[in-house]
Amino acid sequence: MDPSIDRLQRRSAADGRVIGLAGGLPSDAQFPRQALARAFLGAITAPGAPALQYGWPEGSERLRRWIAQRLVRRGARVSANEVVITNGAQQAIALAAQLLCRPGTRVGVDPETYPAALDLFRTRGAVPTAGAAAVRYAMPAVTNPRGQTLGEPERRRLLEASAIIEDEAYAELRFAGPPPPPLLARNRDRVWHVGTFSKVLCPGLRVGWLVAPPRYRERVLRAKHDADLQANSLAQAVLEDFLERDDFDERLVALRRFYARRAARLTQAVRRHLPGWKLEEPEGGFALWVEPERDFEEVQFLEHAVRAGVSFDPGSEFRPDAASHPPALRLCFSAVPRLADLEEGVRRLARAWATFRG
Amino acid sequence: MDPSIDRLQRRSAADGRVIGLAGGLPSDAQFPRQALARAFLGAITAPGAPALQYGWPEGSERLRRWIAQRLVRRGARVSANEVVITNGAQQAIALAAQLLCRPGTRVGVDPETYPAALDLFRTRGAVPTAGAAAVRYAMPAVTNPRGQTLGEPERRRLLEASAIIEDEAYAELRFAGPPPPPLLARNRDRVWHVGTFSKVLCPGLRVGWLVAPPRYRERVLRAKHDADLQANSLAQAVLEDFLERDDFDERLVALRRFYARRAARLTQAVRRHLPGWKLEEPEGGFALWVEPERDFEEVQFLEHAVRAGVSFDPGSEFRPDAASHPPALRLCFSAVPRLADLEEGVRRLARAWATFRG
Repeated sequence: MDPSIDRLQRRSAADGRVIGLAGGLPSDAQFPRQALARAFLGAITAPGAPALQYGWPEGSERLRRWIAQRLVRRGARVSANEVVITNGAQQAIALAAQLLCRPGTRVGVDPETYPAALDLFRTRGAVPTAGAAAVRYAMPAVTNPRGQTLGEPERRRLLEASAIIEDEAYAELRFAGPPPPPLLARNRDRVWHVGTFSKVLCPGLRVGWLVAPPRYRERVLRAKHDADLQANSLAQAVLEDFLERDDFDERLVALRRFYARRAARLTQAVRRHLPGWKLEEPEGGFALWVEPERDFEEVQFLEHAVRAGVSFDPGSEFRPDAASHPPALRLCFSAVPRLADLEEGVRRLARAWATFRG
Repeated sequence: MDPSIDRLQRRSAADGRVIGLAGGLPSDAQFPRQALARAFLGAITAPGAPALQYGWPEGSERLRRWIAQRLVRRGARVSANEVVITNGAQQAIALAAQLLCRPGTRVGVDPETYPAALDLFRTRGAVPTAGAAAVRYAMPAVTNPRGQTLGEPERRRLLEASAIIEDEAYAELRFAGPPPPPLLARNRDRVWHVGTFSKVLCPGLRVGWLVAPPRYRERVLRAKHDADLQANSLAQAVLEDFLERDDFDERLVALRRFYARRAARLTQAVRRHLPGWKLEEPEGGFALWVEPERDFEEVQFLEHAVRAGVSFDPGSEFRPDAASHPPALRLCFSAVPRLADLEEGVRRLARAWATFRG
């Protein structure tokens, strides 16, 4: 990330007066604190204290079984043995990239995609490129930042790649209901499946997972062990206990309703206050991708907007070539404390836009 | 690790009848469960739920301040801003290696050292070598596996390298008392300082830290963000709350006494039951390094010992060239449930040795 954008985002995140439409954080009102507290007390008093002791690189078996079972229900043939617990989706993508990319490897991505994946490909010397390539990174169930579900022709094109990193971070947050079958259900030998509890439960646990093609299993475990030995035992134990008691599908129904309502409100507000901006209604996720009617200098406008009391994510961060044209912003509806903040945030953004000469 | 050794260690760890002298785990009887449970409840009910939400790549400020203050007390000029929270010491070493090593880089290490560090250097294509090199990895306060404190001449030689990764995982577990000043106190521009709560509190939290030379700060943060965005918020919040209430120095005094007693008992048992084996009394840490009087085939003897009801770590794992000569084993006194298990474990080892023809 551009250091000046990073500084601005940090300053605005720490400022209670700024309405945060940046960052892609889940709503902390949706964190099941009481249930997690109960789960913690269960985990910490378990005999032998596995929650506090070292574990194995692949992660705890009960948790891997839970993840595998859900994938099986969605049509993928996966056993617990093939799941590796990671520190969120990010580490799962990083492990896949470590085994798939060398300096110069082209990684095909959507024209806009998850910035931290772009960053990590670049750090490895790989070259993210919009469109097809031997290695593909995609979010077919719910894209970030656009919040769209990819159709069958796009899925089929993805599956032509020799390796596909399928990032399902937002998959369960499709407003219309459960996600379509993962690409993993159509190919086990080339799909690297990535998931996480960060968006549907809470990110602070840092628990995600990777299902790699079977022939890579040993190399993935070695890479995970090299990286940090294992995912944190405490979060895994808390999750295991929590998932045993929780009705997770019911939770997802409530979350989809919660975020769908916010998506609708933000879309409506942008249409009303910034009628010249182009947008596409999101089908899921945390954000709305908008394209203003004219170019603007991103850092300057972000500064201007933050002074007006609202933040956003500049569009260039989501592009493989970091282009700021066509002009675009990501607006997140997920994390503001109240629904009404969305309307007020867009009002401030519209005022800032009206007074800004980029 | 040799896959057949890995399989054996996993099988023996899961078998309650085997006395585990392998693995280097801390004693779970020493985990402050009640205090951690209190800290968790404090963390999870805090306004805004930072324990469950995303944080920044560098980690939580209160925790970084606590770490910096302890380093300052030991003579290093370090501010909270220069500490990066990692997933245990392992990730701190991995981040340092990522920025210091290219394929072919020679990394100077002790003749025996921490196996997971050797593994990660090798995965990066670096070449661990006993002795001096431009990049050095060492544990000056308490070595693993020998449990020795390096003297001034060795420290001075370490400081001649152009980059030194100083791993203090066991530093606070020197039986005689607080550790000597870290190498970090003598050089801030070339020393990469690594620490962790894994040995002195519990490893399941996966919280460690890295203090890199100031000119590397931005690159370290970028690498941490690429790897997994940030350390887990939950464990950091629990730790913050815990450390605020705990008398950590008093805890360390008790831990040193606890492990010193075990070290003495294991040393005594080996002298009694395996009088032909060479050993050096450990000054700290979790383990005793022993050298049998004749060569043996490691996997076969480990199998034989596990059948006799005791496990150990084969010496070759600790050597940069993976040599099994001179013959050696690491025996861990840290994790067995009772002190008497040490005597019984060595008795079984001695019986296995007597009946084994390697």
